[in-house]
Amino acid sequence: MNQEIFTINNLWMMVATILVFIMHLGFASLEAGLTRAKNTVNILFKNTIIPAIGLLTYAFIGFNLMYPGDDFVGSFFGFAGIGLSLPEGWSTSEYNEGYTFFTDFIFQAMFAATAATIVSGAVAERIKLGPFIFFSLLYVGICYPIVGMWKWGGGFLDALDIPFYDFAGSTIVHSVGGWGALVGAFLLGPRLGKYTADGMKPIPGHNIPMATIGVFLLWFGWFGFNGGSVLTADPGTVSLVFVTTAIAGAAGAFGALIASYLKFKTYDITMVLNGVLAGLVSITAGADLMGVGEAAIIGFIGGTLVVFAVVFFDRIKIDDPVGAISVHLICGVWGTLAVGLFGDLAGMGQVWSQLIGIGVVGAFCVGTSWLIFFSLKKTIGIRVDEREELEGLDINEHSMSAYPDFATKD
Amino acid sequence: MNQEIFTINNLWMMVATILVFIMHLGFASLEAGLTRAKNTVNILFKNTIIPAIGLLTYAFIGFNLMYPGDDFVGSFFGFAGIGLSLPEGWSTSEYNEGYTFFTDFIFQAMFAATAATIVSGAVAERIKLGPFIFFSLLYVGICYPIVGMWKWGGGFLDALDIPFYDFAGSTIVHSVGGWGALVGAFLLGPRLGKYTADGMKPIPGHNIPMATIGVFLLWFGWFGFNGGSVLTADPGTVSLVFVTTAIAGAAGAFGALIASYLKFKTYDITMVLNGVLAGLVSITAGADLMGVGEAAIIGFIGGTLVVFAVVFFDRIKIDDPVGAISVHLICGVWGTLAVGLFGDLAGMGQVWSQLIGIGVVGAFCVGTSWLIFFSLKKTIGIRVDEREELEGLDINEHSMSAYPDFATKD
Amino acid sequence: MNQEIFTINNLWMMVATILVFIMHLGFASLEAGLTRAKNTVNILFKNTIIPAIGLLTYAFIGFNLMYPGDDFVGSFFGFAGIGLSLPEGWSTSEYNEGYTFFTDFIFQAMFAATAATIVSGAVAERIKLGPFIFFSLLYVGICYPIVGMWKWGGGFLDALDIPFYDFAGSTIVHSVGGWGALVGAFLLGPRLGKYTADGMKPIPGHNIPMATIGVFLLWFGWFGFNGGSVLTADPGTVSLVFVTTAIAGAAGAFGALIASYLKFKTYDITMVLNGVLAGLVSITAGADLMGVGEAAIIGFIGGTLVVFAVVFFDRIKIDDPVGAISVHLICGVWGTLAVGLFGDLAGMGQVWSQLIGIGVVGAFCVGTSWLIFFSLKKTIGIRVDEREELEGLDINEHSMSAYPDFATKD
Repeated sequence: MNQEIFTINNLWMMVATILVFIMHLGFASLEAGLTRAKNTVNILFKNTIIPAIGLLTYAFIGFNLMYPGDDFVGSFFGFAGIGLSLPEGWSTSEYNEGYTFFTDFIFQAMFAATAATIVSGAVAERIKLGPFIFFSLLYVGICYPIVGMWKWGGGFLDALDIPFYDFAGSTIVHSVGGWGALVGAFLLGPRLGKYTADGMKPIPGHNIPMATIGVFLLWFGWFGFNGGSVLTADPGTVSLVFVTTAIAGAAGAFGALIASYLKFKTYDITMVLNGVLAGLVSITAGADLMGVGEAAIIGFIGGTLVVFAVVFFDRIKIDDPVGAISVHLICGVWGTLAVGLFGDLAGMGQVWSQLIGIGVVGAFCVGTSWLIFFSLKKTIGIRVDEREELEGLDINEHSMSAYPDFATKD
Repeated sequence: MNQEIFTINNLWMMVATILVFIMHLGFASLEAGLTRAKNTVNILFKNTIIPAIGLLTYAFIGFNLMYPGDDFVGSFFGFAGIGLSLPEGWSTSEYNEGYTFFTDFIFQAMFAATAATIVSGAVAERIKLGPFIFFSLLYVGICYPIVGMWKWGGGFLDALDIPFYDFAGSTIVHSVGGWGALVGAFLLGPRLGKYTADGMKPIPGHNIPMATIGVFLLWFGWFGFNGGSVLTADPGTVSLVFVTTAIAGAAGAFGALIASYLKFKTYDITMVLNGVLAGLVSITAGADLMGVGEAAIIGFIGGTLVVFAVVFFDRIKIDDPVGAISVHLICGVWGTLAVGLFGDLAGMGQVWSQLIGIGVVGAFCVGTSWLIFFSLKKTIGIRVDEREELEGLDINEHSMSAYPDFATKD
Repeated sequence: MNQEIFTINNLWMMVATILVFIMHLGFASLEAGLTRAKNTVNILFKNTIIPAIGLLTYAFIGFNLMYPGDDFVGSFFGFAGIGLSLPEGWSTSEYNEGYTFFTDFIFQAMFAATAATIVSGAVAERIKLGPFIFFSLLYVGICYPIVGMWKWGGGFLDALDIPFYDFAGSTIVHSVGGWGALVGAFLLGPRLGKYTADGMKPIPGHNIPMATIGVFLLWFGWFGFNGGSVLTADPGTVSLVFVTTAIAGAAGAFGALIASYLKFKTYDITMVLNGVLAGLVSITAGADLMGVGEAAIIGFIGGTLVVFAVVFFDRIKIDDPVGAISVHLICGVWGTLAVGLFGDLAGMGQVWSQLIGIGVVGAFCVGTSWLIFFSLKKTIGIRVDEREELEGLDINEHSMSAYPDFATKD
């Protein structure tokens, strides 16, 4: 192909990479904003170290697990070795018409940490730092790339008669995080004082501006997450993906606004913020397949679902401080299914393939995250002690406070 | 035209789209920062839902009102139908040499919500949420695209003998918001305790870091707002626009610094922050016509104007918590006029055309926003009751606080 | 060269320009977050006005000092005149194959303010505003471009037998700021109460979320700072630079995590945040020369160094509230040296050239910043009085508070 188009494609992929990078600040802000001031340093610490873990483990092992290439050894597992080694023609369209080898690596590497970041939100305010970092190393470094290989690395989900379809990762990225979040939140148990004899007691987030900053940065970055998943700068496809991404986020906000107003008779900003994310997660699997109306419907349903899911998980006493399971797991599943119900690939065969993908990924992620969390729980323990949880993790794990100059209510 | 240039143009327009998107976080942060903690959730709620409204109404109706195309029915009004329908060749340079149909839509859609966001700042801390959302739906969905059509959709302002000139929207975007802000602030009346028998009592913003984040994000996004308005990636024009945009913002900061120091004998950061925005709004109408020196003069005067405008509106007891009218209306008018005074088009004929544009847009926007706000005022009411205003809108409209963990002074 | 590649190159340079721009918000957030609430307005004021100073002085004089071009008058000093004047063919590849004249100017102009921003952090919480702005005008307007000319403008450091190498400015940008920071912090003396008879008393930053936002925005912008320093959109080089930049930041976080845990037995988030920056500063001189493993080593060592440097400067009672000297000077020197130790240019000859560059730049910057700060100290004074320092600069210099609605502990 010509050098001009190759250079443009690669430029777009690099810009998309940076946009995905800033999503990590989005996750950090959202999670910090929706939890209590006494645990803020802990949350920011985790969310700073997780992208660092993601980048380093992905360079060391993840990239070669996810894209085994010529060293492919099977449909479920392949591995091209430790570390990055430059293939012939790595900086030209010989490697790929959309990007160089390094662009390929760095774009995918930015995604990798997302799985652990999602888990982070659900286990916040009570998990021990060390075990969580250990979990992240394994989940991001090994589990995520194995799942990714099944679809994006040419594995068995891509080889089904009607291939499983997941454009930018409703299942491959978001549900992977979501399943880990579910297992983590379940094994940890709820925060002290959340579910009492008198019923569920909401624990409000301490900084709504931070949470809002987080959601806007995530939406901003999602244009790179979905737009970059086109893997070229093709004008038609990327602009379509921008539109479906924008519309689904907006419709998600409305869906959550209406559902939460009907349910709670108040304008709940945390629901609207999660509604935006719900819309975005929902469109992610099929962002390149849908029209404007379909994107609006898929996003709107996602925004509605998230409200009911939050209520549901509270009812079964799975305590998820930021709603990560509702957003990333429930809407990840919904968005993946929506590929079979709307748009260019709609049909019962596709629904079936989507269900296979959802199920197999779910089984693997529940299994591996259970194995890791459960082993940690039975050995070094995963939950801070009661005094530490009440005083806050910041003072106990980090010997400091996020806001030392301000008087707090507690 | 060749596919390479088309692809580059479209890529730049998509990047510009995202930059305009993040301006909505800029507006949200600025407005939240410059108002009181007890109304923060309310402000963030509005500023999250407004872009969602903008995107959805623009897809449903606004885009086809603003760019009626072949279905053009007159110089003042045209309409191409409900919803988006893909024209032939939508993804190629057949549609436009600078962008695909979807890029066209999404870039313009990101602008659309700005009009309501500007109003939001001026009516903050006392307007009812429901009526404001209703106003936004009509103002963003109908009034803004009609005005936009007059110039950018080929309407009568573009057809004057010496065409009205407004490169990126000092009048078409900023003054549209500014006039609505003026009408809203006037009809609502000032916040309780602002203008007392003892004179004007300043009500300081509660979070200056948030306000600063807001202004920087707006400046950041303005490179897309102005740079994208070139509508191609033409190296000469876009780089000139970047320079005039950067210089005008910087000069606006200095203008406001000097004017406010002379007037108040202190270094007032809110004036400097609004001075940056004043410079940016001022250059917006002629960002592609000015040299570096002219951009500096226009921005500097804008920064000076905003200081006197803020004082003036306080004198006539129009209470504008964030200075939105001074920034967007006064500097929007100034920047539009400056096109007749400086740069490539300077001349009395152009001044006259600019005045026509300013006047007609002003009359229409005052008329329509008055009609909407006044109808709402006489029916369901637009202002929260006194108790709610004193307690804060957050606890009353949203049943929550933005900072529940912190002790407040009130 | 062909117009397509020129247009792509220029587009990337403009995007990189905006990324560097947002680093100023990163610096503002980081510095505000790591200092006390009573000085927040002052810090944000400085960090808003400094980029404005940078842009305006660079247009007026700096650009022509740094790139004297045909008007070059020597190896140490050259000057092409006051203001910007458009050269023939400014908007085409005649000017440069990578960018237009205006892109050239604006990309470099965004860098210019960085030198003063770095100083700002080290002198925070006790310097008078007026003298600091005066210092910034001279340091950014004159000293920085003179140093820059020595390497990037074709001066003597570029003309050594083995040319001094500094890809994106570990020495030319970061150490210039770092030396000024060292001199400023030394001449000002420590903040009241920092070093007492009972030893060093830490003064914790008041807003860790702000500091975290700052570091992520700096990392985000660094992809433009380093990536744009390629000066074209060349796919191979830019993508390599992205990877080394990302990996060095991640490794810096780990280096600081491990070093600070071993030293302090706690998970210190401020060390990890500064570790990210340390990694980024360290890779900046050789971001285009290193492989992935080398980038990791350089970043990791940078992250480790910053922990020991912070302890060291506290031991010699140089009070640097944000760790700017440790990050930008120590790691700037380290990164510059690393070019002689790792990667494509490694060798003792290169080490020697790097040492010359480090030494000459250091001598000049210490000399000029000493001259400016010392003259100011002996005339109008550079330090606020004791009462003002204790009460905070916000109320005394700006007549306002950053958080008026919140109850503080002091």
